[in-house]
Amino acid sequence: MTAAQHTNTTEIVSDPDVPLVRITREFDAPHERVFRAHTDPELVVQWLGPRRLVMTVEHFDCRTGGSYRYLHADDEGNQFGFYGCFHEVRPAELIVQTFTFDGAPDGVALEKLVFEDLGNGRTRLTGTSLVDSFADRDAFVASGMEDGVREGYERLDELLAGAGG
Amino acid sequence: MTAAQHTNTTEIVSDPDVPLVRITREFDAPHERVFRAHTDPELVVQWLGPRRLVMTVEHFDCRTGGSYRYLHADDEGNQFGFYGCFHEVRPAELIVQTFTFDGAPDGVALEKLVFEDLGNGRTRLTGTSLVDSFADRDAFVASGMEDGVREGYERLDELLAGAGG
Repeated sequence: MTAAQHTNTTEIVSDPDVPLVRITREFDAPHERVFRAHTDPELVVQWLGPRRLVMTVEHFDCRTGGSYRYLHADDEGNQFGFYGCFHEVRPAELIVQTFTFDGAPDGVALEKLVFEDLGNGRTRLTGTSLVDSFADRDAFVASGMEDGVREGYERLDELLAGAGG
Repeated sequence: MTAAQHTNTTEIVSDPDVPLVRITREFDAPHERVFRAHTDPELVVQWLGPRRLVMTVEHFDCRTGGSYRYLHADDEGNQFGFYGCFHEVRPAELIVQTFTFDGAPDGVALEKLVFEDLGNGRTRLTGTSLVDSFADRDAFVASGMEDGVREGYERLDELLAGAGG
């Protein structure tokens, strides 16, 4: 990891017109590698979420029509489950998936991740998360998810800078 | 089919606050049977969509984490493909799924179908379809989908009134 990598900032914006959050982040790695870090569960567990949580995959079949379920555990034994299905996976370009947290079983988000080749071995990742009410969107943003997203992407920087990614 | 069944009207409303369409319809059948007509592909092909189109299922695995793909064909040989994944399926209660039409491959809707037991062998079905822009939602409504939805539910009335459902 170099100091330069942490100059890639994570931008998190709530859309003014629709109940959607847009997260934009650049990475110092080719889009094929950033994409693979999202689709290979052995890589995903190394960076997704904040450092204090340990991620365990129950299943993670990242292809069009596949699905996933994973757990995040803290060191006090609390577990948080998340699941969804993969609507579409276009290699090195796009992932469209659904997302539910076990703790809010009637809530569901539609997520799109767009991987953009910026050239010179750099990638812009744009993720959007759409729900059906502004109140739910604002509660999600207020829940402190921003810190987890930023820290996860710093862990992803480190993975991409090493041999693992 | 009795005349009474066609007094069940289909209400289609565009939400004023979020880019969502809400479709409400009652059926003269128990919610378990209305649900099954949505999950068993041998039943789905008998009612989903307008009468002039023939539906063919490529796959239809209606369970949490499953997926589907089907075609609608007209008598001039035109085919229209649709696909998505099943985020969650709760028997006789709820289906949450995604939906894309091949003709608009970058568009995706998040759909929820809620099956409500009204007692006396009657069911209220409430379906919502959420997209990420009001322009796309309004184009979907303006596309003439209302006629197809209404005619499909009349076919479902007929299926439920017979032995097939």
